[in-house]
Amino acid sequence: MKVINLTRNKQKNHLEIFTEWLKSDILEINHAIMNCLAGSESLISDLSNHIINSGGKRIRPLLTVACSKLCGYNGTRHVKLASVIEFIHTATLLHDDVVDNSKKRRGKSSANFIWDNKSSILVGDYLLSKAFRMLINEGSINCLNIISKASVKISHGEVKQLVSVKNLHTNESEYLDIIHHKTAELFSAACEIGGEVSEVSFEKKRSLSEFGNFLGIAYQIIDDTLDYFSNAKTLGKICGNDLKEGKMSLPLIICFKRCNKKEKKIVEYIILKDFINQNDFLKVIELMHKYDVQEDCIKKAKHFSLMAKDSLGIFSDSSEKEKLLNLVDFLTYRTK
Amino acid sequence: MKVINLTRNKQKNHLEIFTEWLKSDILEINHAIMNCLAGSESLISDLSNHIINSGGKRIRPLLTVACSKLCGYNGTRHVKLASVIEFIHTATLLHDDVVDNSKKRRGKSSANFIWDNKSSILVGDYLLSKAFRMLINEGSINCLNIISKASVKISHGEVKQLVSVKNLHTNESEYLDIIHHKTAELFSAACEIGGEVSEVSFEKKRSLSEFGNFLGIAYQIIDDTLDYFSNAKTLGKICGNDLKEGKMSLPLIICFKRCNKKEKKIVEYIILKDFINQNDFLKVIELMHKYDVQEDCIKKAKHFSLMAKDSLGIFSDSSEKEKLLNLVDFLTYRTK
Repeated sequence: MKVINLTRNKQKNHLEIFTEWLKSDILEINHAIMNCLAGSESLISDLSNHIINSGGKRIRPLLTVACSKLCGYNGTRHVKLASVIEFIHTATLLHDDVVDNSKKRRGKSSANFIWDNKSSILVGDYLLSKAFRMLINEGSINCLNIISKASVKISHGEVKQLVSVKNLHTNESEYLDIIHHKTAELFSAACEIGGEVSEVSFEKKRSLSEFGNFLGIAYQIIDDTLDYFSNAKTLGKICGNDLKEGKMSLPLIICFKRCNKKEKKIVEYIILKDFINQNDFLKVIELMHKYDVQEDCIKKAKHFSLMAKDSLGIFSDSSEKEKLLNLVDFLTYRTK
Repeated sequence: MKVINLTRNKQKNHLEIFTEWLKSDILEINHAIMNCLAGSESLISDLSNHIINSGGKRIRPLLTVACSKLCGYNGTRHVKLASVIEFIHTATLLHDDVVDNSKKRRGKSSANFIWDNKSSILVGDYLLSKAFRMLINEGSINCLNIISKASVKISHGEVKQLVSVKNLHTNESEYLDIIHHKTAELFSAACEIGGEVSEVSFEKKRSLSEFGNFLGIAYQIIDDTLDYFSNAKTLGKICGNDLKEGKMSLPLIICFKRCNKKEKKIVEYIILKDFINQNDFLKVIELMHKYDVQEDCIKKAKHFSLMAKDSLGIFSDSSEKEKLLNLVDFLTYRTK
C-alpha cells in the first residue's frame, strides 16, 4: 500500500512538471481552438467546449508541443497543428461515445447524454472536416500526409474494434493491431509533426513517430486494464464499460486464454448476454485475479513504454527529453 | 394526367442520354471506388457497396465528369476526383440515416437498418477520412481547398438543420442557408473541380461553381417537395420522413406562413408531437393543397434551376452544354 502511494505521488509530480512546462503553449492551443470554433453554430461550440474542457489530460496535443521542443523548435506552427490533433481526437471521442452508448466521459456526463446522439455525430463530423481545413490552411503537405494517414487508420481501427465485439476468438495480435490503429496512430502523428515543424532529419522524425506509436500502445493497454482494475471497480462499486460492451480488450483476451474449459464456458456465457451486470463483472474480475491478468497487462504495457523510451535514443540528453521520458512512466504507472 | 406522363417520359430520356454519354466514366469511377475499398475490413466494403450500389442517380460525381467534358478535358484525373465526391456524399448519407433514424434509402433498406447505427457511423468516418486521403494523393491543392471547404460547410449545414428541427419560426432564408450548406456546396464543388482539372479560366471555374450551387438548391427544394408530394404520399400510402422528423423544409415553412391562426395551432400541435402519424401527415397535406404549396415550391425550384442554366452562359453552345442544361430540367421536373 505504501509503495503504491509513493508511486502515485511521483506520477502526479511528473504530470504537473510536464503541464507546467507547456503552460503557455496550452493557453495558445486553447486560444486557437476557440478561434476555430468562433462563428460556428452555438451547438458546435457548446458541445466541443464541453468535451475539450472536460478535464482530459490533453496528451496528444501536448506531445506535439513537447516533441517540437525536444527538437529545439522556437516557432509558432506547432500550436495550430496541436489544435488539429485535438480536434481529430475530440471528433473520435464524440463518435466513440455514441457507438459505445456511454453516459460518462472522464467522470462527467458525456456529450451524447447531455445533448443527444444526433448532435454528437454531426458535431463530430464538423470537427473532423474543420481539422482538415485547418491543416490545409496551415500549408504543410508533409503534416497533411501524416495526419490524413492517421485519420484513415483511426477510423479503420474503430471499425476493426467493432467487428471484434463479443468475438472471444480475438487474439492478442489482433488486439494490438486494433489499438495500433485506433490509438497509437494519432499519438505517432502528434509526435512526428513535432519533428516535422522543427525540420529535423528523417531519422529523428521516424524516431518520434515510433516513440508516439509505442507510447500510444502502452497508453491504451493501461486504459483497458484500468477499465477492469481502477479502484472503484475492484471495490465492486462500478462495472467497467468494456465488458458491458463486449469489447475484446487485452485483460479479457488474456483471461479467456488462461481459463479452464469450465471457466471458458462461464466467460462465454457472460460475454454473449444482452445485459452484463455487476455480478458478471465481479465473476470476470475474480477469474482475472486468479490468472494474474492485471499484473501481466501492466507488464505488457511496460514492454511498450520501454520501447517508446528507447525510440528517443537518437536524441541527446536534455531536460526536454527527460520530461518526455518521465511522461511515459507517468502514463504507464497511472492508476486512473 | 396526360401532361404528367409526357413530362416523365421526356425526363427519363434526358437522364438516359446523360448516363449513356458518361457510361465509360461511370465504369471507371466504379472501378476507382472498388480499388479504394480493397484491403479494408469487409464491413467497410460491404456497407459502402450497399449504399453506393443502391441505385442512386450519382448526380454529384457525374457533374464532375460532365463539367470536365464541357471544358474540353481529355485526361483521367476527373475519375479519382469524382470518386472522392461520391465518398464524401456516401459518408454524409450514412450519418444522415442514423441521425434521421431512417429505415429506407432509395426504396431499399438503409445501411443502419441492415447493419446497425454503430457500423454506419464508423464506416462513414472511414469514408470521409479516406476521401481526404485520396484527395491528398491526387495532388491538387486547389481541389483539396475546394472540397475541404465544402466538407466543412456540409457538416455545418447538417448541424444548422438539426438545430432548426421542430422550430416553426425557421424562415425561408434560413432554409436556403441550410440547403446551400448541406446540399449545394457539394454540387458546387463537384462542378468546380471539373473546371479545375481542365485548367479553364477563373471566370469559368466560378461559373461552374455557381451552376452547381444553384442546381443543388433547386435539387434539394424538389427533394423536399417530393417528400410531401410524391405519388405514394399524395395517395396516402406513406407518410413523408421530413414531417415525421420535424424537419423545417420549404413546403412546411411556406404552409405554416400561409395558415390562419387556427390552422397554425393545428400544425404546431402536429409538429410538436412525439409520434407524427399518417392522419397528421394527411392533415398537413390538406393544408398544403389549400395554399398551393406544391406549385409554389416547384416555382421556387425553377427559379434556381434557371439561375443554374444562366450560369453556364459563359460557355459556348455545345452538345455537352446541352446535356447539362437538359439535366437541370430533368432534376427540376422529376417526380421521384
